[in-house]
Amino acid sequence: MRKQEDRASVMSYIRYAWTTLKERCKNTSMTTDKPSFQPLYQQIRTLLAQRIAQGEWAAHEALPSEWALAESLGVSQGTVRKALTDLVDEGWLYRQQGKGTFVAPGLNEWGDGHLVTPGQFAEPPGSPVPELLSCTRANASEDIAQALSLRRAAPLFRVRLLWRLAGVAVALDDAYVPVGRFEEIDARRLRQYGNSLYTLLERRDGVRVRLGAIQARATLPDRETMTLLGLSDVEPLLMITRLGQALTGEVVEWRERLCRSARWAFQREP
Amino acid sequence: MRKQEDRASVMSYIRYAWTTLKERCKNTSMTTDKPSFQPLYQQIRTLLAQRIAQGEWAAHEALPSEWALAESLGVSQGTVRKALTDLVDEGWLYRQQGKGTFVAPGLNEWGDGHLVTPGQFAEPPGSPVPELLSCTRANASEDIAQALSLRRAAPLFRVRLLWRLAGVAVALDDAYVPVGRFEEIDARRLRQYGNSLYTLLERRDGVRVRLGAIQARATLPDRETMTLLGLSDVEPLLMITRLGQALTGEVVEWRERLCRSARWAFQREP
Repeated sequence: MRKQEDRASVMSYIRYAWTTLKERCKNTSMTTDKPSFQPLYQQIRTLLAQRIAQGEWAAHEALPSEWALAESLGVSQGTVRKALTDLVDEGWLYRQQGKGTFVAPGLNEWGDGHLVTPGQFAEPPGSPVPELLSCTRANASEDIAQALSLRRAAPLFRVRLLWRLAGVAVALDDAYVPVGRFEEIDARRLRQYGNSLYTLLERRDGVRVRLGAIQARATLPDRETMTLLGLSDVEPLLMITRLGQALTGEVVEWRERLCRSARWAFQREP
Repeated sequence: MRKQEDRASVMSYIRYAWTTLKERCKNTSMTTDKPSFQPLYQQIRTLLAQRIAQGEWAAHEALPSEWALAESLGVSQGTVRKALTDLVDEGWLYRQQGKGTFVAPGLNEWGDGHLVTPGQFAEPPGSPVPELLSCTRANASEDIAQALSLRRAAPLFRVRLLWRLAGVAVALDDAYVPVGRFEEIDARRLRQYGNSLYTLLERRDGVRVRLGAIQARATLPDRETMTLLGLSDVEPLLMITRLGQALTGEVVEWRERLCRSARWAFQREP
């Protein structure tokens, strides 16, 4: 058993090292200005992904025409078209038949879900506002290490957010991101991006996050959670655990959310 | 207030009557053999939807070629192609580039979710088995009436299922379907279709159900629920409330599911 665990932990470390190395290489070729040996359309793809990540176009804004992009980049229209097709497949852009190519919005911190009154399916969704409680370091539990392909106890950034709806605390988030995969994450930097981890990773690191697998269950709060959510009595909470993936498929975030659900339900559309 | 409620209830009744009438007309033209004045491709679409619903082809089975279908139905290949495109848009079929057209599987009673050990994202899903507890009649609560476009207290079929995983009770379902919208629903008929409401509605009534909006929250069980789930102590339960829609978009089912979640989490993929 002990041996198996050692082996698993070594394997997981090798996987981690390999992924990190691959990503370093990718990032280097992404930010360098030196000529590289990637096919031209991939270089154009990378350049355009950076420009989208940095917010050159707003979400749902139309991209310039293929012709105009080709002209400004000094490449053929076919090359631009191939790069755009990749960006559509990856989720940076979307196409509307006969209308053009548009910038896809980044992932909302609430994913495809929102808060409503239980049972009221037609009610307009509530939009909670995030308050940053802390940004610290933690070590990966076994579950988190496995999901993020890290070794056990690997260092993580831990972002803790409190969500308020009309001033009332409704949810508590703990988001975990591997240390070393991105630049430093701290409270000051998060505040610069409106307390949104996803906005920070996209704008600063050029990594867009999409929703991975999601789990829901019910739980009872511990003392700390009760204090943070301002609960005077124990009430059952909805616990949502989910993974955030880079567009390459790599899992880059583990998030656990505790929602008060006496007055609110977590709704998603089909 | 009283007056407004009366008005709302009259309006909801009119909506209900209108929907029922429309559906009756639709169903009549669907099951009759008399010539109708629908465009030819729509008649072919209806015929093929019936044949799929009745299980002529298994889920993921390839349909005969457009040419073979045209030949056997005595219509042009263009007509068949138009009918198939409609069936793909409605979710009866799916296409694979260069491979052909396949029968899409009907909705699983667990939708796109399944049970796993909390935190274990890579674990193979558990497949609970349904036991039919009862099939009775009930009256629509305000929430159900609104979601199903019925008047308040409208009559409903209420199907109650207990789900077991490896013999242990894990979830309790109450599914509500309007009386009059479909043929009679009772325990004997449900058993014929493996205790699956969706299989019954598809095979018998030609109506395929897809997942509509879904809500999740946490709750504590009442006495009856505790007895049915065999709980000796109170534990928080995950409550999933969801709508089932016909492929036309009409909401035909309200379902409430209570899941034990101390040992299982409800997971869905992105």
